Amino acid sequence: MSQIVGISLLGCGVVGSGVLKILELQQMEIERRTGLRLEVRHVVVRDPARVRDIPAAFPRDRIHGDADRAIDDPNVAIVVELIGGTTRARELIDRAICSGKHIVTANKSLLALAGPELFRLARERNSSISFEASCAGGIPIIDALLRGLSANRIDALIGIVNGTCNFILSKMTREKMGYAEALAEAQALGFAEADPTLDVSGRDAAQKLAVLSTLAFGVHVREEDIELCGIDGLAADDIRFAGEFGHVIKLLASASRSASGALRLRVSPTLVPQSDMLAQVSGSFNAVSVYGSSLGHAMFYGRGAGQLPTGSAVVADILSTATGVGPAMFRALKSFPDSAGPVRLEHADASESCFYIRLTVEDRPGVLAAVTDAFGRASISLRAVLQHESSSSDAVPVVILTHRCRTGALREAIRQINALPASRAAATCLPVLESPVEFA
Amino acid sequence: MSQIVGISLLGCGVVGSGVLKILELQQMEIERRTGLRLEVRHVVVRDPARVRDIPAAFPRDRIHGDADRAIDDPNVAIVVELIGGTTRARELIDRAICSGKHIVTANKSLLALAGPELFRLARERNSSISFEASCAGGIPIIDALLRGLSANRIDALIGIVNGTCNFILSKMTREKMGYAEALAEAQALGFAEADPTLDVSGRDAAQKLAVLSTLAFGVHVREEDIELCGIDGLAADDIRFAGEFGHVIKLLASASRSASGALRLRVSPTLVPQSDMLAQVSGSFNAVSVYGSSLGHAMFYGRGAGQLPTGSAVVADILSTATGVGPAMFRALKSFPDSAGPVRLEHADASESCFYIRLTVEDRPGVLAAVTDAFGRASISLRAVLQHESSSSDAVPVVILTHRCRTGALREAIRQINALPASRAAATCLPVLESPVEFA
Repeated sequence: MSQIVGISLLGCGVVGSGVLKILELQQMEIERRTGLRLEVRHVVVRDPARVRDIPAAFPRDRIHGDADRAIDDPNVAIVVELIGGTTRARELIDRAICSGKHIVTANKSLLALAGPELFRLARERNSSISFEASCAGGIPIIDALLRGLSANRIDALIGIVNGTCNFILSKMTREKMGYAEALAEAQALGFAEADPTLDVSGRDAAQKLAVLSTLAFGVHVREEDIELCGIDGLAADDIRFAGEFGHVIKLLASASRSASGALRLRVSPTLVPQSDMLAQVSGSFNAVSVYGSSLGHAMFYGRGAGQLPTGSAVVADILSTATGVGPAMFRALKSFPDSAGPVRLEHADASESCFYIRLTVEDRPGVLAAVTDAFGRASISLRAVLQHESSSSDAVPVVILTHRCRTGALREAIRQINALPASRAAATCLPVLESPVEFA
Repeated sequence: MSQIVGISLLGCGVVGSGVLKILELQQMEIERRTGLRLEVRHVVVRDPARVRDIPAAFPRDRIHGDADRAIDDPNVAIVVELIGGTTRARELIDRAICSGKHIVTANKSLLALAGPELFRLARERNSSISFEASCAGGIPIIDALLRGLSANRIDALIGIVNGTCNFILSKMTREKMGYAEALAEAQALGFAEADPTLDVSGRDAAQKLAVLSTLAFGVHVREEDIELCGIDGLAADDIRFAGEFGHVIKLLASASRSASGALRLRVSPTLVPQSDMLAQVSGSFNAVSVYGSSLGHAMFYGRGAGQLPTGSAVVADILSTATGVGPAMFRALKSFPDSAGPVRLEHADASESCFYIRLTVEDRPGVLAAVTDAFGRASISLRAVLQHESSSSDAVPVVILTHRCRTGALREAIRQINALPASRAAATCLPVLESPVEFA
């Protein structure tokens, strides 16, 4: 005889209906493996009449608009929050925790904003919060950070965690599209929202990085701690020039620990060497590279969004909660935002990186000398300087790769170069990922 | 006040001393995160005087040869078996389970051989067995299969799970070495044993595949269920010719479910398209690709062997056991060998694949016609046929890629070709991986 575990789903959009589909398909196998029968007793939506994409066998009378009833039902043990946003979702999670329910959520915005308070409340009420689906869709990266890599001091975490941006950049790279055209195609195919701001500004990636780096480094990282640059200003030229240097441009969310222990947190379009595993991550796929003190480099790859992949992570969390494994982990591990200390950030100017720089300057003798002189005065040594042919005007693009240098020094050199009389547009400046050599 | 958890280490070779090093380095962080103090009270080795590579601070009087004392110590909760082999290791694990200890082991040979009995005993005695380190070193693939992908029906699992073979193949590919030379270098660098048979024959990979596919498919897979071909017969020519077709050769351990639900299990050198993520896995790195019904394709990448990477997995298991998370998972999930039904294997001849074939035939008119005729009669259509120049004799290599065909039909065609008067050596025949297209 299987034990029945009651579940309430708050929200039934793309991910919610994926959860219902997976539960229907995997019901028997889940029961065989766990002896548990997961029963969705309530699906709470604003307009029950408009819920369409769900299994035919699912009882329609369980779909309603009454969140209180869904949370208060004494036969419900797990509340799954898939509404998104930070206002109503937070009220409902608070309420569910106070009613003694366990929480499963995919809401990275809320976790990045109010993680400490929510986790503290859950701990006080002997509840638990599972949130595997909040980052990198179906990839079990949160579980890996909490359990699989628990014997490591994490030194760096570098991820492609926004499928929309990765899709757009892949299109721009492979099909030589401009940004606007690639965005339009992503929207047409459902990979980007009508208002794509949250994705293309890098904010979505920053929220995920906040969640992941809180777990990885044991300090509470907030979205505003992260240096942010989106893909919306990226020119097709930059992708082409990066290619000429053997790199592809990816939106990387990266966190790394400096020698002093301070964290460097950044979301930015970044040049990735074509030989790096991250360069191979195309379309809407996600991947997270982790560098641990014992394990060295590990990478986790898979679909970062979509109905079934994200549903896969939600259902895994439901199962883990229902079997008691998730709550045991929540109680045993002080790895969550409420237990994490404050973050110590590396000063932006002090951090070091290699950089890609694209200048637009007048095509006349002496200009290149003035440019290289500005780098020299800032003690920045250059790896490559390429002056390109101009197709249209007397201004030409000059592309530069630097060796590793202090960001502050670079900023100063760029300030000087932008001020040159020969400079025709502000310089574009992107970090370059230095991949480890890992043949052996 | 931290709670102390007593641990006995049985065996202190490469991995064992890695465990001691990691515990020393991570002690404070582990205590902060879990409130537990992991204390190694016994290290059991044959010759205590010969133990060298361990932290200086570790008390030497805890290193001794008395396994019974280490197991019976009432202050020990977790016994970590790192002896390897299937005789003494099994006796000690049996004994430890019967003494009420939890088990952490890296011993895939023993799990592949006696998994069901050991897991059943552990369940009866309210003990648990954790074995993340048994497959793919530090990569948390077992945890992913048990928890992260629990909402998926797994359709296929394809892994590079032997670092020694991958190192040798990478050397042969990148530096155009012959097999013997690459093996010698692997031995000199410590990546291969003096007797490399277990690795290069593919047996080590098959034992890992047995463990992984038991968890992935919920049926008990034994080593002898797996079709086996090692890398020891591989010619440098095959690697070169595969390269001309845009492929690299990797030793793949693969398991897939046919339409009828039967499993196809194989360890074999396999042609992998250069565009596949697995083709990028070089040197002693491992990776496992998993195809799940909800998640689609996911890949887990990292170091598959070595002191600290494997130690990382062992310590993660120790921590998980000490916090109660591992035992909760062991009790709740019937995913282990003792709960798995018997495997149903696809008949070897019925399985389908694309193949790479290298023939050595006389260089005279009519031979190629006889060869292609043999394929035609077996209803096998060909994707490419390349006749190479011969450097030395009147025999020439002919390299063929087939379209997808039944293995039985291929076997028949090869039998006929080997019997041709013009055939100078038995054909070499390797499967070709068909990668999914995953741009979007």
